[in-house]
Amino acid sequence: MADEIERKLLERVKEQEELVRKLKAAKANDVQIAEEVTKLSELKAQLGNKNEVSSKLILKTPKGTRDYGPEQMALRLAVLDKIITVFKRHGAETIDTPVFELKEVLTEKYGEDSKLIYDLKDQGGEILALRYDLTVPFARYLAMRKISSIKRYHIAKVYRRDNPSTTRGRYREFYQCDFDIAGQYDPMIPDAECIRVISEALQCLNVGPFTIKLNHRSLLDGIFTTCGVPNDKFHAVCSSIDKLDKNSWSEVKREIVEEKGLSESSADKIGTYVSQSGGIELIYELKKDNELMKHESAVNGLESIELLFKYCNIFQVTDKIIFDLSLARGLDYYTGIIFEAILTGDEVGVGSVAGGGRYDNLVGMFDSKKKSIPCVGLSLGVERIFNVLEMKLNHESVKTRTNEVEVFVATAQKNLYEERMKILTLLWDAGVKAEHSYKKNIKLLAQLHHCEESGIPLVIIIGEGELAKGEVTLRDVVSRVEVSIPRAHLIDEIRKRL
Amino acid sequence: MADEIERKLLERVKEQEELVRKLKAAKANDVQIAEEVTKLSELKAQLGNKNEVSSKLILKTPKGTRDYGPEQMALRLAVLDKIITVFKRHGAETIDTPVFELKEVLTEKYGEDSKLIYDLKDQGGEILALRYDLTVPFARYLAMRKISSIKRYHIAKVYRRDNPSTTRGRYREFYQCDFDIAGQYDPMIPDAECIRVISEALQCLNVGPFTIKLNHRSLLDGIFTTCGVPNDKFHAVCSSIDKLDKNSWSEVKREIVEEKGLSESSADKIGTYVSQSGGIELIYELKKDNELMKHESAVNGLESIELLFKYCNIFQVTDKIIFDLSLARGLDYYTGIIFEAILTGDEVGVGSVAGGGRYDNLVGMFDSKKKSIPCVGLSLGVERIFNVLEMKLNHESVKTRTNEVEVFVATAQKNLYEERMKILTLLWDAGVKAEHSYKKNIKLLAQLHHCEESGIPLVIIIGEGELAKGEVTLRDVVSRVEVSIPRAHLIDEIRKRL
Repeated sequence: MADEIERKLLERVKEQEELVRKLKAAKANDVQIAEEVTKLSELKAQLGNKNEVSSKLILKTPKGTRDYGPEQMALRLAVLDKIITVFKRHGAETIDTPVFELKEVLTEKYGEDSKLIYDLKDQGGEILALRYDLTVPFARYLAMRKISSIKRYHIAKVYRRDNPSTTRGRYREFYQCDFDIAGQYDPMIPDAECIRVISEALQCLNVGPFTIKLNHRSLLDGIFTTCGVPNDKFHAVCSSIDKLDKNSWSEVKREIVEEKGLSESSADKIGTYVSQSGGIELIYELKKDNELMKHESAVNGLESIELLFKYCNIFQVTDKIIFDLSLARGLDYYTGIIFEAILTGDEVGVGSVAGGGRYDNLVGMFDSKKKSIPCVGLSLGVERIFNVLEMKLNHESVKTRTNEVEVFVATAQKNLYEERMKILTLLWDAGVKAEHSYKKNIKLLAQLHHCEESGIPLVIIIGEGELAKGEVTLRDVVSRVEVSIPRAHLIDEIRKRL
Repeated sequence: MADEIERKLLERVKEQEELVRKLKAAKANDVQIAEEVTKLSELKAQLGNKNEVSSKLILKTPKGTRDYGPEQMALRLAVLDKIITVFKRHGAETIDTPVFELKEVLTEKYGEDSKLIYDLKDQGGEILALRYDLTVPFARYLAMRKISSIKRYHIAKVYRRDNPSTTRGRYREFYQCDFDIAGQYDPMIPDAECIRVISEALQCLNVGPFTIKLNHRSLLDGIFTTCGVPNDKFHAVCSSIDKLDKNSWSEVKREIVEEKGLSESSADKIGTYVSQSGGIELIYELKKDNELMKHESAVNGLESIELLFKYCNIFQVTDKIIFDLSLARGLDYYTGIIFEAILTGDEVGVGSVAGGGRYDNLVGMFDSKKKSIPCVGLSLGVERIFNVLEMKLNHESVKTRTNEVEVFVATAQKNLYEERMKILTLLWDAGVKAEHSYKKNIKLLAQLHHCEESGIPLVIIIGEGELAKGEVTLRDVVSRVEVSIPRAHLIDEIRKRL
């Protein structure tokens, strides 16, 4: 009989679910839908146990995303903290922007990558999309607020509907750590500081040896012109060249010829250029290339790189940089110097761990009078850095503390939990980080075991004896040494030991 | 002539845009779309100035969202830092989850509020939605990882397609600061700690006097039964009662009678209960209500509240709590104690600044075997707190520093920028937070003015004279006192002064 009622109810739930679905599909008005949803909830409530309805749910995070557990978060926060210290050392302020933007803000900023933008559903109202990076929202922010100079960092999540290899530390949702300098300044002075910032950040994170590759979009333009690439194909060829860190030259050449429609000879000529890399001597060599030097953009690009090398020398990062003609950077918005850092030690193959460049026209794309603000900035690939460090920690079997509890309040006998709570109140009032078991009665050994597991340094133990004498036992978890302390001196004694 | 070419190009751009749109609507394959998008970009590049296309862009953040500038971020980070200190004082670890979840994870967890969930567009693949709170993702996390006990905090943005009054500090994108205790423990011990955590947080944030309202879902159930509300209407009536903080009883009564279909007399009876609030004495009074005490859920609810009052007394927060029968909390998932903090000083009317409760069945909704994990937790309404503090600061005309620069490196003469860069390198290497002007030549007065504006405490001034002697001038920005220091002692002298 009860089953019969339940069966009928379940049937009505399903009918109602169907009705709600249809109303939503037909974009019925919100009030009507809400009413039917309420009816649905009521029917489900009658079913007694709401749980039964959703029993076939697959438990997972969306494709390309992941949760961070306490261990991962502890490591991640330590990494971000070090990065923020470097950003602040260079005088940066911080800002934040919404996770989504009007879709049109993002349109036409990323070139071929635009297809990877996550769109929000049109639920009536504005057409929105999740941010793809922090640079375009930053440019929108500058234009909207008419800010002509700022040095800011921004650490936040960005979203790309890519098909990433999560094992290599690439995700659809990932943090970017950006540092940018906006303003009309003298050539290469802010640019050189960006290189120095990358160098400081990677050094303090202990990710091992690294190299920062440098190139210049104007130089690439000059090379493309020299190689007979028509103007309107610069961006397309650039995004092919950008794949040279993952693909061989023959693959990239095939793409340039077959997909981008360049001649075989043009492609080969490009090949002779983009295979070159080196130090300051490569600049001098290219300056002797008369064909290349006929093009103003090539001359300008080379001079910029030469100046950057000079400033990098003052900033003592010369040993970290390499001039690499194959560096192209995929995104459309770069206009000047571009750079990318890769690890060169044991962790070769994790790909770029930092990148950036100059984008002098992006802000102007948002300004009604096309007034632009020159910008240069960098982005640290913190997810990859995080992966590298996690592997290192696993390798060294280092255990990371996930909480900061200083004192655990334990009881040796039953029913003393209210005494524990009194002592906790005392500790919290004094700002001491402290916890106890939420169980009234728990074995002392279990409490001590918890402290050892969690790395809590001190335990206060109270029993009937201690209570009678107005004392507590203070135990050092590592040494297991115990001392009796009058309750009145408790906070002082704890402070002495922390 | 040039105009004619441009007109034709513009026509082709529009045609191509139309083609891309159609391909996307028809869900053509990604490669084909990408090719046509590339063609589109190329056409646009031919147009010379890409900017012209997007000239009618409206510059704004999406409805109900906002940017945070450096001043707002400085205040916000200081607030979050204090909150995190409190959470850590109570031994919490932290976790993070993706900003979006599979849509079905969020379905049926929020009752009437579900219509406010932001859906992502179906771009092929999983059906996703932005998180509506941090509680449901937390429950999903526990069930997915089969975690049976954890004490965690989570500070992250959540999304509600509401029509919020942004002037009152309500937004569509806003931070939640959650602290939750999951695990099978003894009654009210973790619950009381949540009340204590709210109290510590609000005290340390200096938001003025506050009250934490308490109630219990079981008691509300008992009251509803007593007043003749059918079981299947509990949730619906609950969400009407929840509006009592904003609406009058007569408005709420009208909703209960006209929309939720209760009788006039039932509604009036509910009205006599929900108008009551007070301290421990109200518990004793309700215990004398024989009609109410016939219902087990009412008895259980009252006993729980009594126990909570006892523990709150030990935790010394009795003066902060009030037992309020009108407190209902809108969300479906609460099963036990519920609470909400409001400001009672000058800032009355900002609404709730913290809230939470017990939700013992939520994790079970995700578990295939319905195994549930009892949970209790709180959420700090940091956006409102932030608004209150911002108003206070504006009122007191306090200027917040937005960067942490300790030393500015200035030059008194032209063309000494490379010398500035050398000194900066020295400072950065020593971990000193330092900056200079990115302009080669800038008036000394402008440099000093910048330091005063930004609150930078020290300036190093170099001129030809100082350089010749191997010295620098160190100036205290506030006192304007200057001293000459040998370059070799520079770092030591700066450390002494910071």
